[in-house]
Amino acid sequence: MEQNPNFISRYIPNSITLLSLCCGLSSVRYSIISEWKIAVFLILLASIFDFFDGWFARKLKGDSNFGAELDSLSDFVSFGIAPSLLIFFWSLSELKSIGWSVALFFSVCAALRLARFTADIYLAPKTINKKIYFVGVPSPAAALLSLLPIFVYFEFDFYFFKNPYLNLLNIIIISLLMISKIPTVSLKSINFNKKYTPLIILLIVICCVGIISNVWLSLVIISIIIYVLYFIQL
Amino acid sequence: MEQNPNFISRYIPNSITLLSLCCGLSSVRYSIISEWKIAVFLILLASIFDFFDGWFARKLKGDSNFGAELDSLSDFVSFGIAPSLLIFFWSLSELKSIGWSVALFFSVCAALRLARFTADIYLAPKTINKKIYFVGVPSPAAALLSLLPIFVYFEFDFYFFKNPYLNLLNIIIISLLMISKIPTVSLKSINFNKKYTPLIILLIVICCVGIISNVWLSLVIISIIIYVLYFIQL
Repeated sequence: MEQNPNFISRYIPNSITLLSLCCGLSSVRYSIISEWKIAVFLILLASIFDFFDGWFARKLKGDSNFGAELDSLSDFVSFGIAPSLLIFFWSLSELKSIGWSVALFFSVCAALRLARFTADIYLAPKTINKKIYFVGVPSPAAALLSLLPIFVYFEFDFYFFKNPYLNLLNIIIISLLMISKIPTVSLKSINFNKKYTPLIILLIVICCVGIISNVWLSLVIISIIIYVLYFIQL
Repeated sequence: MEQNPNFISRYIPNSITLLSLCCGLSSVRYSIISEWKIAVFLILLASIFDFFDGWFARKLKGDSNFGAELDSLSDFVSFGIAPSLLIFFWSLSELKSIGWSVALFFSVCAALRLARFTADIYLAPKTINKKIYFVGVPSPAAALLSLLPIFVYFEFDFYFFKNPYLNLLNIIIISLLMISKIPTVSLKSINFNKKYTPLIILLIVICCVGIISNVWLSLVIISIIIYVLYFIQL
């Protein structure tokens, strides 16, 4: 995979990966001081950077072993550690060591998921199947689903969603989905049929308008759709 | 590297890696609630597990791509994120965003170091040189050096060592050592000459006795020796 040592193609994707890592770490810092909204936004920002670093790496043909390793480390922090600490401090900490065990369980499952994914890159030459299907819920989606109770809480002020037992159950389900062999379509690599282009643009516009006008409600709807899609496949 | 799919040889090293990861994450938890001593011990425990997982993987010939990836993720948490957050909360937080930037810098350098190291495993067939020399200070050594001011503070009660500017300088130096090309002898792989065996056993006994009778002083001495050894090579 080490093919194009061009300056820009090497450094742009890796710099974006490092930005994603910094967002994930800073999210931990804000979780600790109970600045929940900032912590959530930093995880979302990390997922946007994560999308673009992969996109740039493919466009600039700069994907390297080094980039894949760095991406794995950054993903683990932003979508494994940051969400689990956020949910722990926000809700699970009431359950003390049981809450901490479940937060650890989520991080461990994220590590297993990412290690399997990154190790697979080296095993076989990439087939089309590998590009289209992830095996197990990818960590950014898992991070989003783990934060669903927070989104509902912020939008509707339902105090029930801060309940530690509800969050415990949610985190356990998502952790198991991560290490399961459930197939997942990777949006990044689908070659959409051209006739769907206007529809897809419309969908993207609806998402953007939704997020700008009511970020929490949009996140609730997106997370529920993803959740339902996974349960249909089970 | 995927050669021996034996149950024990696969699961023992990876389980030890996961224990190391859990120690690293729990260290973060204790740093946050200012339980500095527990946080330091958990990082030290993680480094012991880290040593043994590599050792078991070699002995049981169970080293796999998956194990290497998992090890990289666990090392990053235990020796990149946990020490930087510990030093941040213990001292650097007085400097607010400057302190945070330096903590982030340490984590980013640890990520770069680990990504380079893991990516290199796949690049070339392992040569003897690769086994004996690490390039750049390895992350467990870096973690130990970054904690040196804490060890001194606990042993001698010198309040000066909690000074954020001193810690800032220390963290920056170690971060740069991590991403430098400084060669490092890997203790794990040296084939010691048999006539040195009694000497080495004596050295190990002295270390163990020292750590049991006065843990902080021993850690101070070990860290200073490592520090000096690196600066001799510069």
